Amino acid sequence: MRETPIELKTIAKFVDGEIVGNPDILIHGISSITDAAAGDITFLSDKKYLEMATKTLASAIIVSESNPKIQCSQIIVSKPLLTASSIIKKFYYTPPSPPSGNTENIYHGKQVKIGQNGTIGPFVTIEDYVQIGDRVTIFPGVFIGEKSIIGDDCLLYPNVTVREKSQIGKRVTIHSGTVIGSDGFGYIKNAGQHEKIHHIGNVVIEDDVEIGANVTIDRATIGKTVICKGTKIDNLVQIAHNVKIGESSLIVAQAGIAGSSTLGKNTILAGQAGVSDHITIGENAVITAQTGVAQNVPAKQVVSGTPATSHTLWLRITQILQRLPEMRQHIRDIDRRIKKIENKGSK
Amino acid sequence: MRETPIELKTIAKFVDGEIVGNPDILIHGISSITDAAAGDITFLSDKKYLEMATKTLASAIIVSESNPKIQCSQIIVSKPLLTASSIIKKFYYTPPSPPSGNTENIYHGKQVKIGQNGTIGPFVTIEDYVQIGDRVTIFPGVFIGEKSIIGDDCLLYPNVTVREKSQIGKRVTIHSGTVIGSDGFGYIKNAGQHEKIHHIGNVVIEDDVEIGANVTIDRATIGKTVICKGTKIDNLVQIAHNVKIGESSLIVAQAGIAGSSTLGKNTILAGQAGVSDHITIGENAVITAQTGVAQNVPAKQVVSGTPATSHTLWLRITQILQRLPEMRQHIRDIDRRIKKIENKGSK
Amino acid sequence: MRETPIELKTIAKFVDGEIVGNPDILIHGISSITDAAAGDITFLSDKKYLEMATKTLASAIIVSESNPKIQCSQIIVSKPLLTASSIIKKFYYTPPSPPSGNTENIYHGKQVKIGQNGTIGPFVTIEDYVQIGDRVTIFPGVFIGEKSIIGDDCLLYPNVTVREKSQIGKRVTIHSGTVIGSDGFGYIKNAGQHEKIHHIGNVVIEDDVEIGANVTIDRATIGKTVICKGTKIDNLVQIAHNVKIGESSLIVAQAGIAGSSTLGKNTILAGQAGVSDHITIGENAVITAQTGVAQNVPAKQVVSGTPATSHTLWLRITQILQRLPEMRQHIRDIDRRIKKIENKGSK
Repeated sequence: MRETPIELKTIAKFVDGEIVGNPDILIHGISSITDAAAGDITFLSDKKYLEMATKTLASAIIVSESNPKIQCSQIIVSKPLLTASSIIKKFYYTPPSPPSGNTENIYHGKQVKIGQNGTIGPFVTIEDYVQIGDRVTIFPGVFIGEKSIIGDDCLLYPNVTVREKSQIGKRVTIHSGTVIGSDGFGYIKNAGQHEKIHHIGNVVIEDDVEIGANVTIDRATIGKTVICKGTKIDNLVQIAHNVKIGESSLIVAQAGIAGSSTLGKNTILAGQAGVSDHITIGENAVITAQTGVAQNVPAKQVVSGTPATSHTLWLRITQILQRLPEMRQHIRDIDRRIKKIENKGSK
Repeated sequence: MRETPIELKTIAKFVDGEIVGNPDILIHGISSITDAAAGDITFLSDKKYLEMATKTLASAIIVSESNPKIQCSQIIVSKPLLTASSIIKKFYYTPPSPPSGNTENIYHGKQVKIGQNGTIGPFVTIEDYVQIGDRVTIFPGVFIGEKSIIGDDCLLYPNVTVREKSQIGKRVTIHSGTVIGSDGFGYIKNAGQHEKIHHIGNVVIEDDVEIGANVTIDRATIGKTVICKGTKIDNLVQIAHNVKIGESSLIVAQAGIAGSSTLGKNTILAGQAGVSDHITIGENAVITAQTGVAQNVPAKQVVSGTPATSHTLWLRITQILQRLPEMRQHIRDIDRRIKKIENKGSK
Repeated sequence: MRETPIELKTIAKFVDGEIVGNPDILIHGISSITDAAAGDITFLSDKKYLEMATKTLASAIIVSESNPKIQCSQIIVSKPLLTASSIIKKFYYTPPSPPSGNTENIYHGKQVKIGQNGTIGPFVTIEDYVQIGDRVTIFPGVFIGEKSIIGDDCLLYPNVTVREKSQIGKRVTIHSGTVIGSDGFGYIKNAGQHEKIHHIGNVVIEDDVEIGANVTIDRATIGKTVICKGTKIDNLVQIAHNVKIGESSLIVAQAGIAGSSTLGKNTILAGQAGVSDHITIGENAVITAQTGVAQNVPAKQVVSGTPATSHTLWLRITQILQRLPEMRQHIRDIDRRIKKIENKGSK
């Protein structure tokens, strides 16, 4: 993955780790325990993979404690996965960089402000009054609507749409195909027709948010839809108008949040889960995969099922459900036995 | 939100409402009851928010009846939400308008017909034989395939794809990233392989339909996939080949409808609900969120759960499910008590 | 659908079928049994539609056996649907063909290799070191990232994003809005923040894969996300980092597969189904619609429900669930009857 290999001791020094084995070996790449070949460094993210680590073909491994069963050189650190991640970033990751567009293939509106040291690719549209910070990377096919603000160090992948008046903080990454600021799904029934409520609010995305591919985040009817700082959103997620998601939350793929709901900070909304409108979910709550939330969830609660209930109760319910056929049979047996007793009694 | 404020009496006159309070105050913007500041007008969409209305900082409020507890000026109308919506549209909403592309940055095929007074943005592709009506707005990055027809007053947001031969009616709005007319998911197993069935049908979208962001509507295998007039579709919805959705229906975010199913008019398919293929759903039926429909649903039915059942029954079932652990314990107790009786009897 | 009609005998000869009726009639188009008009050919895909076939207005029908009740001319073949599909392809389908871009409206990086006889539309970005095979069709708005490889005879519809280093085999079709190679959803919690794990892996798509619209397939953290040959993926599907999907599988709309899970060959993942991370699903397994898989599924198993269980058991459970209110009533009745016996006994 790199043109030039790195000595193991260079890596160890970077991560402040202790080497057990040969510090001079050359590392050519990083790989998982099972995929690694000679010349690779790998890492033991969890002790449950120790058995696999003893068989790895890697030349070096990052571990939390030295183990004599492991054949290759070891680097000992306190958090192997975190360390591996920093090694990837330092030695193996190249930040993506689109080609620069030119005056012919970028549409550039009036009174646009663009910061220093960024790159804007071809076929990008930047409407009037847009403000773009420093070191912003914008890939081809991106649209940025009128009066939107994009903070420093943002990264917008190809074919992202940011509608008018969106406010995007610093260090925000938005993956391809994502739509920020589309109209909310708001209509009023009038004389049998669904009459559109025009959406004059916007979307505010705070610093250090990452948004996956083909996500949709609707603008507020009035006011704003807010994604607070440090929150990470996976692919194909739906976030409706006027939703507020607290800091450092995780919204996993294909989850959906209906209008005006609020999630506290550090919440986790797992894959394909859904939250109804006007719901409040407390801090540190966990909504498990495919769960359907139709009532408020207190802080720290873990909920599952549709409608959502306590995860512990849900686990018991789903276990008992497996035995529902037996249970019904048991009831029938009991009924028969009682009938027998009743008949005897009546004789 | 506006450069120049409006006198309250101007608003009252526009909505034909009665003022209680000062007709001369200046209104600077519209906001929700809780977000409103001095200078704003707000509205009481439902009497359950009356308490909040008595504390609003707004300078004026739209209500259905005057209330002495409300401090600010009031405009009395029969339907406050509908009135607020019309005020937004009249005074605070600016229709979005993309920059105009030019002969260099619009691809313009042969024998294309384009009506009057529209705007076509840069990086738009219009293939051969396309017909576009009057006052059509097409944002950057839109693709319109060969022989497609786009009716008067349509609005296509950035990065929409309309594949060949699609027919789109008047006043249709399509949000960013949506794909109209992709091939249906149709294969025939032949000698162990999935052989593609080529799709020669199209998509027909009638007047006054609105389609959210990142929606997918597949073209018919043969014939047409149809979205009837006045229907509104939310984000990330999947509509398969040969589906027909009746008039004035609402399809909420992340719902999916499989091939050849038909929904009657005024149906509601709530968020993340799914409908199997070749299903018929009657007029005015409601499919609640996350429901899985695998059998036909009669008109006016409300169904829930997977597989879908009557909503009333489903409510009872889900309530009883919460007590399933107790129920099992109860059965065990009963069994024990019968055993006792049986043992006594046999002595 | 065609300018010039075809004689029925020409069609019969092409499909090697036997004609019952008039071989000289002219066929103008192909249609479904119910939509067909005079001049059309139609087909009886399943005998359950025989009644409808007797009433069709079509001039000819493809059947597996001659039937005297059918009024129109018949072509007898062994597999009518497969034959109809081949007729569509031969006589009625025109492969889509975008306009050709030019040096002004295609961005063409350095050291790009492009094969023969393909078409690249306007507003396409091809980054450095990309390799594109022969007869490749690339529609407007497509982005192909650095060092990606696109095999012979691929077809990429408008607004597709293929991120850097993706490897796409031969005869692969990718529908509009789909994103290949976005970063996986990988973070490590560090000092209360979600720290990004940079993704240095890629996506490998083998030959003869078809991918629907607005699909997301994430690149691997390290290593590769793999879609094996002949697999077909419907719209709005989420495939996370490091997933492997075996040959000839079918992944239906809105299904999602979390990180590092593996599906064996010939598996079916039906609509809106979800698979947790690090799961293994055996060959020929079927995961029914909306199912939630959180444990490994053996080969050939059919599973349903959340959490997934044997489909047969799930069917029984869901049937009994409909009678849960009665069941609870029954338990109460039994309890009452026992109380009566107990009271009698104690007297």
